[in-house]
Amino acid sequence: MNRALVYHGKADVRVESLPDPTPPDPRGVVVRVERTAICGSDLHLYHGNLPVPPGFTLGHEFVGEIVEAGSEVRKFRTGDRVIVSGVIGCGECRACAGGQPIRCVRHQTRVFGNSRELPGGQAEAAAVPVADTALLRVPDGISIDQAVLLTDILPTGYYGARNADIEPGQSVAVIGLGPVGQCALQCAQLFGPSRVFAIDRVPSRLEAARACGGIPIDGSKDPLGAIRDATNGQGPDAVIEAVGADETIALGIQLVRVAGVLSVIGVNTNMAFPFPMLQALMKALTFRIGICPVPELWGDLVPLLQSGRLSPERVFTHRMPLSKGAEAYALFDARSDGVMKVMLDPSA
Amino acid sequence: MNRALVYHGKADVRVESLPDPTPPDPRGVVVRVERTAICGSDLHLYHGNLPVPPGFTLGHEFVGEIVEAGSEVRKFRTGDRVIVSGVIGCGECRACAGGQPIRCVRHQTRVFGNSRELPGGQAEAAAVPVADTALLRVPDGISIDQAVLLTDILPTGYYGARNADIEPGQSVAVIGLGPVGQCALQCAQLFGPSRVFAIDRVPSRLEAARACGGIPIDGSKDPLGAIRDATNGQGPDAVIEAVGADETIALGIQLVRVAGVLSVIGVNTNMAFPFPMLQALMKALTFRIGICPVPELWGDLVPLLQSGRLSPERVFTHRMPLSKGAEAYALFDARSDGVMKVMLDPSA
Amino acid sequence: MNRALVYHGKADVRVESLPDPTPPDPRGVVVRVERTAICGSDLHLYHGNLPVPPGFTLGHEFVGEIVEAGSEVRKFRTGDRVIVSGVIGCGECRACAGGQPIRCVRHQTRVFGNSRELPGGQAEAAAVPVADTALLRVPDGISIDQAVLLTDILPTGYYGARNADIEPGQSVAVIGLGPVGQCALQCAQLFGPSRVFAIDRVPSRLEAARACGGIPIDGSKDPLGAIRDATNGQGPDAVIEAVGADETIALGIQLVRVAGVLSVIGVNTNMAFPFPMLQALMKALTFRIGICPVPELWGDLVPLLQSGRLSPERVFTHRMPLSKGAEAYALFDARSDGVMKVMLDPSA
Amino acid sequence: MNRALVYHGKADVRVESLPDPTPPDPRGVVVRVERTAICGSDLHLYHGNLPVPPGFTLGHEFVGEIVEAGSEVRKFRTGDRVIVSGVIGCGECRACAGGQPIRCVRHQTRVFGNSRELPGGQAEAAAVPVADTALLRVPDGISIDQAVLLTDILPTGYYGARNADIEPGQSVAVIGLGPVGQCALQCAQLFGPSRVFAIDRVPSRLEAARACGGIPIDGSKDPLGAIRDATNGQGPDAVIEAVGADETIALGIQLVRVAGVLSVIGVNTNMAFPFPMLQALMKALTFRIGICPVPELWGDLVPLLQSGRLSPERVFTHRMPLSKGAEAYALFDARSDGVMKVMLDPSA
Repeated sequence: MNRALVYHGKADVRVESLPDPTPPDPRGVVVRVERTAICGSDLHLYHGNLPVPPGFTLGHEFVGEIVEAGSEVRKFRTGDRVIVSGVIGCGECRACAGGQPIRCVRHQTRVFGNSRELPGGQAEAAAVPVADTALLRVPDGISIDQAVLLTDILPTGYYGARNADIEPGQSVAVIGLGPVGQCALQCAQLFGPSRVFAIDRVPSRLEAARACGGIPIDGSKDPLGAIRDATNGQGPDAVIEAVGADETIALGIQLVRVAGVLSVIGVNTNMAFPFPMLQALMKALTFRIGICPVPELWGDLVPLLQSGRLSPERVFTHRMPLSKGAEAYALFDARSDGVMKVMLDPSA
Repeated sequence: MNRALVYHGKADVRVESLPDPTPPDPRGVVVRVERTAICGSDLHLYHGNLPVPPGFTLGHEFVGEIVEAGSEVRKFRTGDRVIVSGVIGCGECRACAGGQPIRCVRHQTRVFGNSRELPGGQAEAAAVPVADTALLRVPDGISIDQAVLLTDILPTGYYGARNADIEPGQSVAVIGLGPVGQCALQCAQLFGPSRVFAIDRVPSRLEAARACGGIPIDGSKDPLGAIRDATNGQGPDAVIEAVGADETIALGIQLVRVAGVLSVIGVNTNMAFPFPMLQALMKALTFRIGICPVPELWGDLVPLLQSGRLSPERVFTHRMPLSKGAEAYALFDARSDGVMKVMLDPSA
Repeated sequence: MNRALVYHGKADVRVESLPDPTPPDPRGVVVRVERTAICGSDLHLYHGNLPVPPGFTLGHEFVGEIVEAGSEVRKFRTGDRVIVSGVIGCGECRACAGGQPIRCVRHQTRVFGNSRELPGGQAEAAAVPVADTALLRVPDGISIDQAVLLTDILPTGYYGARNADIEPGQSVAVIGLGPVGQCALQCAQLFGPSRVFAIDRVPSRLEAARACGGIPIDGSKDPLGAIRDATNGQGPDAVIEAVGADETIALGIQLVRVAGVLSVIGVNTNMAFPFPMLQALMKALTFRIGICPVPELWGDLVPLLQSGRLSPERVFTHRMPLSKGAEAYALFDARSDGVMKVMLDPSA
Repeated sequence: MNRALVYHGKADVRVESLPDPTPPDPRGVVVRVERTAICGSDLHLYHGNLPVPPGFTLGHEFVGEIVEAGSEVRKFRTGDRVIVSGVIGCGECRACAGGQPIRCVRHQTRVFGNSRELPGGQAEAAAVPVADTALLRVPDGISIDQAVLLTDILPTGYYGARNADIEPGQSVAVIGLGPVGQCALQCAQLFGPSRVFAIDRVPSRLEAARACGGIPIDGSKDPLGAIRDATNGQGPDAVIEAVGADETIALGIQLVRVAGVLSVIGVNTNMAFPFPMLQALMKALTFRIGICPVPELWGDLVPLLQSGRLSPERVFTHRMPLSKGAEAYALFDARSDGVMKVMLDPSA
């Protein structure tokens, strides 16, 4: 039997026993999960905003060991310890082969624990299709915590920073200092900015940002005014939005300087966000938003972790056994000061 | 006296006699206007959507001869034939010095015939502030028609194409084949696309696009389906929107492929455009919109005109004396098949 | 038996019968050659400058039909008509998988008909290793002539142009208007230059360049002075060298403007080229040279051929049966006016 | 009288009294020198390799106060404390206006204390032509040591790093850890490399590099082998050469990986450097060398100094009065362990 964290309704998740998974097809594998984490985007499901069926296993951040491999898997074998990309595609097209499942030519982009046919990894074991394009053997020198972050939020933070077109000497603002925002802040530093303003309302998050070289800005006290004052009335050259709320995206548009870039990595599901087109026109705005091509970014990130240039693992503030998954979701959802990210251990 | 085309209310423009202009300050000049054209964006004023006071002179596309120069003008002198940037700034900050008045550090970005303190150039003569950063001596080999296009719409079309990040071999769609769309189409060709889909509903505009290497797509017959079919269901790599309507911007978002670029140069004044954020997120969209930094782009465009690589002057379909300005606006506003762009001659 | 064009010594090539090839390993195929062409770089071997053993089959530009496929070939099958990359690698590393055999991590970069263990394709049939990374099925709308050009010289010309960092409106010079130079000239046009100066001494080559929009410059009459005069004494923004001689590379360094780019695609085998370092320092030179990553560039080039934006097939001036291979080499080597590129047909 | 450090022959420099300077023309100023430093490139003159006339004042790194300003100077006035660009141009062309004197359209690129008509700043006072394009008012928060480094070697180090096209996660090698190499190393870190190998033979220089996050590589013990071993046999993605010797440039060519970039900022005056063209061809090398456009880079560097992200001032190991200039040159020339860079104070 496979103990798994499953959805039953709004704010109702439970650990239940499900049948053991099998490779979904000859190109897939089964992974025994060593660690899995809860992502801020999991809360969209937890709140019932993105519909999944009752009994569906959650989670797209997990790493573990291959315990069974389909006959057509070429690059991996039983016993390999692997990182699983939270997002996958058809596994065969040029985009998937190049590490960009979000550009899957066959429109088969899927997210574990979100897309109906793809149960998640907050479980003792999980089935992973198209293994050759979805996995990375855990590289030497990468800790288990770092491995979990490579499944989604570290690539996402890096993607957000890269999309911001930061050049050496520029100023940047990061809106939202949850786990993804912290990753974005660390990754923004890779591009040589002179200053990174870090906006949030939670003291411990502001403090964590300061430890990564950010300039803390209290989001409850006119961050727009504070950052304009600090930039001669111009605004920062680039803004990375890592919340996904309508108000924070709107703040990003207001904040960024003329001819600057707003890069959104927060998940926003509004199909009619009130976009101030005239303001954007006068600003000569570049606006980017998107799900990140996880596997494509591993090649850049792994050596940065190995050399210690990035150390995002500090985002984990809580570790719990999978069996306490319901408490873990409730804790994470409360966004209390001091709670950043929760790791679940299926073997504990 | 200075005969000028002035605004009096919705769809009410008249040629009237105004006092002769003088240099607005020691850094300004007076230009005797040789030619001036009506821009699609002038129709926003003509329709009363952007408020200007009665008696205000319209027009931001004009070229002519300097007949009086302020004492602090350094680069130009009386007798110089000059192209006037439709948009200007403070004329002194680093951005203005670099040809980017839209990034004016002092927030003095202004458009002739739009910003209240800056009457336009649809007149026999016009005052031009900050001449050193606003003017270009008409270069050898540049015709008067080309000169007028360099004041705004050719740089705007080029800016739209440049913002689309087109790479050799890619496919592009241009939405809207009015004068700016035609310029964008010609400029898109500079980046080596394999195909440029050209969307409009007016037969003569589609025909003009075909003559520039575009693939005509009838905008009244499911352009989304037609272009998807032609691109294996993926959509074009880049889309340039040159209308500014809510529907055409929405079409652009739908049309562009995953991880593609939508570059908007149409003027849209909606402060709450219903932006499909979730769709953009799944698409990994790059969205750009903005007023163009006219003087910065002259250096690229002049040699392309001189060598014949660009020939945007074909957009002029009608030429009228300034005295017939009211008829010209009405004609242009009707968007009849066969009417592309109207040139006005103050001396005729 | 396999009729093949083999090397026997300086200026001594002969058509001989060799044993039929077999797939070199389970990942390889045998191709029945439909057409093969002689490349300028083949003349380095013909002149004895690059040593190959007597009896070695020449040629790295060939296309044909797969007549036998190894058991581990996944993407192709018997009967497929394929374009063969002139350069291949190990076929398994990340670089090879990404179409960049020149960056093969295992240092197995090899050129057909050059590298000892890899006999060429100027034959009735040829063995092709690592088929999955070396081949492209002939796409719809691509002629056999275009297919042959896709094996090497069109990608090489495109690579040379791309390496030149040409921006819209800039000026370019192409030194050497043989087949590769003609391809480079056509590809340079993809980047929107205002002018492309085309330098050679052979009238028919200058004329061919003019037909592609080039400005012919007689290389025997002070091309340096002529182009400086035409560029206000500055020199072109970018220079593409497509000969490979010491003098033409030196000309390129002299010719290019300060802070410009010299892109060399001519093959130069000098291990002590006298590089004017002080001059390059004062010029702030960017210098690029390299063998081209053929398969990586197919994705850009195929749609440009399909849409008619590129038509490099005009370089073929002579067509001969493979049986006349010796005459073909002699004719090509003479570089007579009117001889551009020679196609060989093994079935004729 | 103006006490100045003047050249008299190989290894013979003396402090002498010269007439007080005057503004060289109405656009120039006279600067009372506060501090001036000796540059590695000054040793080319000291060794007699670059001829200057006896009695010529040396030095291109100096900052001070304007004590007299020509009538046409617009941006500066008497009393301003200014940083002087070590390299200047005509001061009027588009390139000079944009901060790129090395691209001066009128070919008037000149270096203080090198170009005959432009005596240097190792003196109590110096004449500075074309002040509006040559100077920067010392910004708030910039120390006098940082100001001196902004005249040449910090921009040069940054230029070398920028020219190396470093991307996040890549590996870099810096050859030569003198003052310019230390600046290059710090600036390379702005581009997010995972590792920077730092090569020199002097222990104190290796130690200084380690303090900036570099990985020390002893240049006397097979640096090529050591770095290949550390990069899986591939070599670093980018190499910055900061010595200028033939051997170190050759090492850079050997060291860099296939399709990598070699960026040279060391001054090499060889007009026939033996360049291994065939090796470069097989490597697909990008090679850059050049004098740096100092003023263009100030905008990036000043905020990085102000925020503490860069702290290159640690290169100063020795401070002496100008009156001891001869000893200072001898000390610097000896390249002893522990001697990095010497600052001269004309007022001490």
